[in-house]
Amino acid sequence: MAAAMRREIDFLLYDWLKVETLIGTAAFPEQDRQDWDAFLDLSGAISANEFLPCYKIADRDEPQLVNGDVHVQPDIKQALHTYMQAGLHLATVDTALGGMGFPFAIATGAMTEVMAANVAASGFVMLSIANARVIADFGTPEQVATFAQPQFDGTALGTMCLSEPDVGSSLGDITTKAAPDGTDTLGARYRLSGRKMWISAGDQDVSDNIVHLVLAKAVQPDGTTLPGPKGTSLFIVPKILPDGSRNDIAVAGLNHKMGYRGTPNCLLNFGEKDGAIGWRIGAEGDGLKIMFQMMNEARTNVGLSGAAMAYRGYELSRQYAAERIQGRPAHDKTQAKPVAILQHPDVRRMLLQQKALSEGALALCLKAALLCDLANTAPDAPTRQAADSLLGLLTPVIKSWPSEQGLVSLHQAIQIHGGYGYTRDFDVEQLYRDSRLNPIHEGTTGIQAIDLMGRKILSDRGRCFADFIAQIRASAANADPDFAEQAGQLAGLADLFETTVSQLLADGSAADALSNATAFLDAFGLCVVAWIWLDMAQEKTWACRYFYAVEVPKIPGLLAPLSTHQSLTRDVPDHVLV
Amino acid sequence: MAAAMRREIDFLLYDWLKVETLIGTAAFPEQDRQDWDAFLDLSGAISANEFLPCYKIADRDEPQLVNGDVHVQPDIKQALHTYMQAGLHLATVDTALGGMGFPFAIATGAMTEVMAANVAASGFVMLSIANARVIADFGTPEQVATFAQPQFDGTALGTMCLSEPDVGSSLGDITTKAAPDGTDTLGARYRLSGRKMWISAGDQDVSDNIVHLVLAKAVQPDGTTLPGPKGTSLFIVPKILPDGSRNDIAVAGLNHKMGYRGTPNCLLNFGEKDGAIGWRIGAEGDGLKIMFQMMNEARTNVGLSGAAMAYRGYELSRQYAAERIQGRPAHDKTQAKPVAILQHPDVRRMLLQQKALSEGALALCLKAALLCDLANTAPDAPTRQAADSLLGLLTPVIKSWPSEQGLVSLHQAIQIHGGYGYTRDFDVEQLYRDSRLNPIHEGTTGIQAIDLMGRKILSDRGRCFADFIAQIRASAANADPDFAEQAGQLAGLADLFETTVSQLLADGSAADALSNATAFLDAFGLCVVAWIWLDMAQEKTWACRYFYAVEVPKIPGLLAPLSTHQSLTRDVPDHVLV
Repeated sequence: MAAAMRREIDFLLYDWLKVETLIGTAAFPEQDRQDWDAFLDLSGAISANEFLPCYKIADRDEPQLVNGDVHVQPDIKQALHTYMQAGLHLATVDTALGGMGFPFAIATGAMTEVMAANVAASGFVMLSIANARVIADFGTPEQVATFAQPQFDGTALGTMCLSEPDVGSSLGDITTKAAPDGTDTLGARYRLSGRKMWISAGDQDVSDNIVHLVLAKAVQPDGTTLPGPKGTSLFIVPKILPDGSRNDIAVAGLNHKMGYRGTPNCLLNFGEKDGAIGWRIGAEGDGLKIMFQMMNEARTNVGLSGAAMAYRGYELSRQYAAERIQGRPAHDKTQAKPVAILQHPDVRRMLLQQKALSEGALALCLKAALLCDLANTAPDAPTRQAADSLLGLLTPVIKSWPSEQGLVSLHQAIQIHGGYGYTRDFDVEQLYRDSRLNPIHEGTTGIQAIDLMGRKILSDRGRCFADFIAQIRASAANADPDFAEQAGQLAGLADLFETTVSQLLADGSAADALSNATAFLDAFGLCVVAWIWLDMAQEKTWACRYFYAVEVPKIPGLLAPLSTHQSLTRDVPDHVLV
Repeated sequence: MAAAMRREIDFLLYDWLKVETLIGTAAFPEQDRQDWDAFLDLSGAISANEFLPCYKIADRDEPQLVNGDVHVQPDIKQALHTYMQAGLHLATVDTALGGMGFPFAIATGAMTEVMAANVAASGFVMLSIANARVIADFGTPEQVATFAQPQFDGTALGTMCLSEPDVGSSLGDITTKAAPDGTDTLGARYRLSGRKMWISAGDQDVSDNIVHLVLAKAVQPDGTTLPGPKGTSLFIVPKILPDGSRNDIAVAGLNHKMGYRGTPNCLLNFGEKDGAIGWRIGAEGDGLKIMFQMMNEARTNVGLSGAAMAYRGYELSRQYAAERIQGRPAHDKTQAKPVAILQHPDVRRMLLQQKALSEGALALCLKAALLCDLANTAPDAPTRQAADSLLGLLTPVIKSWPSEQGLVSLHQAIQIHGGYGYTRDFDVEQLYRDSRLNPIHEGTTGIQAIDLMGRKILSDRGRCFADFIAQIRASAANADPDFAEQAGQLAGLADLFETTVSQLLADGSAADALSNATAFLDAFGLCVVAWIWLDMAQEKTWACRYFYAVEVPKIPGLLAPLSTHQSLTRDVPDHVLV
């Protein structure tokens, strides 16, 4: 399987996205494709030889909480050590900090194979690098040396502590408190107390130390905390303090999940005794703002994991459909002997759907990674600004479309495997369970929809959206004449979405727009991926044709709730619902 | 939860379907609603007090294979004993055989609660009754007394042994052989040898004996077997023979499933030694034909279980959404305090969708049960014929729509529960895993689609389909004026499907029609349930409005592949797919 996935990644990075155009720019002065390929080779080999073999084992042997400490399945621990000893977690880290300074696009390509092989293992690394990057970007030099550097060295791993048992999506309402406790070389010191829920890798025995980034409310001189998002600040709270003593953090319990079981998911109690010691990073009140850098990176990674698992499911389906002999095609029963199920039109339909959804999702995620590179490193400001703006608009789609459609794709992978696909003997069963987390963590699909409609479209008065529609029109106008039919459909989508959004922006309809945000997100996600498919049409003719024949026609139906009965969900009386 | 589900069942049976009109007909001369209500009460109580408490336990403690025998989790065993000791499995069994002789509609209503509480437990009973009914309908009096009666008495349970490791959907290709072995009081005796896969309750320690109905190929005088479906015959093969000795049947292994874990799923080896002794039921070559009675009953039950689990997921969501306090509605952030998530428009949308899908699916299944009663017992032949014909057309929808849409509904149940819904502490997690079997067993969704398109529409030259379209038109024409908009949409669907099917019936397009059968099934399922929703509109205004505003508009998009690129899946070269 590894070979096909790597070919796909190479195609997307080099042939489609032309990542090599980054070479020689100020940010990547001395890199070349040979460096990147060596990195992709090694990462692919560790994915296949270390992470994949413990995929099922880590599902079966869940992390255990023993005497207050969490023990992770040993094979997954060993695989992570191998990966970090090879320094592969440092792909995107600045060379000044000891990293490779590679483009995000290249690192994302390599991460696809890690996630496809063992998404639970990938979680440890992804969170840690995103955590360390926040410290590197917003911390003092002492904070970077003490808390980011060990993560780069592989002796510590990091977490993101936002949710609480009663607060998931509305982070302004958290109640964890941080009481000022003087200042030292690491900055303003605090004592934290509160409970943090859903903390992936919140405790583990993979690394010597754990660096938590904790969102909490700084206690004001009058003893109160400030309400809402502006009352939140961010704190670095290590499991082991710089003096070697253990911080006041207790694992109150482990969540037992449907899938993704290799990553422990913890309820952490901070400050059961004297208060957990932490140091503020950034200014007071900037907690959510800073955290959103990590959150956006995490959201992109969730989308990528959805794409990666869907792609692996597609590969398993391909192999199974070619090998499994059964029945005769419904439209041609004359064959004396049973055929490979690949010959059944409905199996071909499911394979094409898996191909179109998983390759489309992966293309979207790698394009997002390149946009990230351009936003950070493009030589000219307009390019940086345009990339940043498009990435912001698309982030809810990048997070949610591969998450939701990855599940649809894996649903078909199970169907192709028949009863076997429903058993734990086949990896598609676990891929489906693991993937089910994606529409939930780092902001549910509904939250992504509100982000798209509220922050990215309504608050922006549709400016960034209009730029994107212009890009779609240009793509349709410049499409290969062989795909004139599909280009016409895409141009039609540009008109449809332009009209829809201008109606949403009309005065007084914000409540309707926000109430129907998920329907819009579903439709818009298809439009974005349709744009991507037309761009790849020449190399991937059949999947593009499939996407425009089967998926694109669903868009008008999905948008229907935005033009009729717009206030239905607000108008329905409570007693009908509960 | 039980109260709401029971109210829903009562509404559907008595107010909507008017099941009481059956009372006094020849088949139900001395029954009344009081009898039925007492039965529904008892069944509901056992569901709540016996089956529900072991729902999670039976998932955690899977059946074990110990020294060749399968041991089922004790609580589920006890619950089944209580249920059968109360005689509740006999609801639809003829009074002449010791049953209650109740309408299928009433029995189906009661079964909804059993399935909602513990679908794995329900499997034992459903299979057994369907098995015993086949024996009662097609067996000799001796066969009925020896193999059906113990199942009615509760001392034996039955199975359906069709699939083999290499043969699932193409039963004409089975290789299990039955060699003639003389004749005795139980009929033509055979020695069977072969392997049967995916046998639910294939071995268990719930009942003293197990009665397998085994599809096999009778060995001809020349030592060969006949190819294809016409070579198959059906055999009764008990685990314990009438003389008390053990038959030659070995449990070769258990399948370890994603869900539905309370029911053991076995690989059975028949005839590892001298051949398993079995008696033919019905004529040689009639195996598949007879088996299809059981299969159709099983398919209806799969649909019902999908509806029942989706409905339970809806109830859990309702309760959670009313109790869980978090955030402020996206369209109105002015509230100082967080609100119940029920107040968020997107949560309301998900609740409405769950309501519309789960109640719609349940209505479809109970209507199917009533059609079954009418087909069997209506006083006049035209009514019986019309009911039978409609039931045949709708069976693929009854099996697949609640199976697929039940999963969509449970997807939303998990979303409403957020991270909690992904943990095994909440039943929605298990309902989702359990439900994932439904699009597979008793004929995958793809197989249902081919049945609908091939057997029910093309082979019938669209006659039965035309009758159904006429019914839809009549419903639209007679709809309440308050729902004129929805009636107009339904009339439009009648036109759309009429046109679509007439194109499919045009000469030479059968291959295209069969290749796009699943797209047609998806669209047609929505149409059927739209018809049902309009019929319930007066009592369930909001769910009907939701269905026509959000679900019905999806239909044209789903049908798109039938009018463009019809041969896409056949034309795509193999190398693109594998």
